[in-house]
Amino acid sequence: MALKERSKLRIDILGQEYVLKGTDSPEYLKKVGNFVSDKMDQVYKNNPIYGPTKIAVLVSLQIADEYQKLKDDYEKIVEELRVLDKIHKIG
Amino acid sequence: MALKERSKLRIDILGQEYVLKGTDSPEYLKKVGNFVSDKMDQVYKNNPIYGPTKIAVLVSLQIADEYQKLKDDYEKIVEELRVLDKIHKIG
Repeated sequence: MALKERSKLRIDILGQEYVLKGTDSPEYLKKVGNFVSDKMDQVYKNNPIYGPTKIAVLVSLQIADEYQKLKDDYEKIVEELRVLDKIHKIG
Repeated sequence: MALKERSKLRIDILGQEYVLKGTDSPEYLKKVGNFVSDKMDQVYKNNPIYGPTKIAVLVSLQIADEYQKLKDDYEKIVEELRVLDKIHKIG
């Protein structure tokens, strides 16, 4: 079997070009790249005096917050499923 | 009722101080801040020639990737739960 094709995407973030590579689909890379790029633009629009490093750090913190909140929700659901599965086995 | 207390946390990221504020607990802010700070240190360690903006953008992309993958998993679980609930109602 041939090695899995690597996707590659060039994306502009805060005026600099970044190359995303991965075994994920090109659509996935585009989704992730645009998600980050849009957030950078948004933070810059709201704080035009901030430098690019500060903007990128604030975006990292923002995404980390969304990630952590989703992770907490995810873990709650997995725990509920575990309980449901137990009840199912007992009942 | 008094307004909900806002938490505040000072954190060092890439040699700069950032102040995180929110209605989340101080422990939560610390978790998110350390998560980002650790990733910055890791990327810097692996790429010491990169400037701080590039490091912060790469970390944003990394966290966005983790977030997107978790989101896809989360949506799958929610969909499974919906199907299970339907089966339950029919059966």
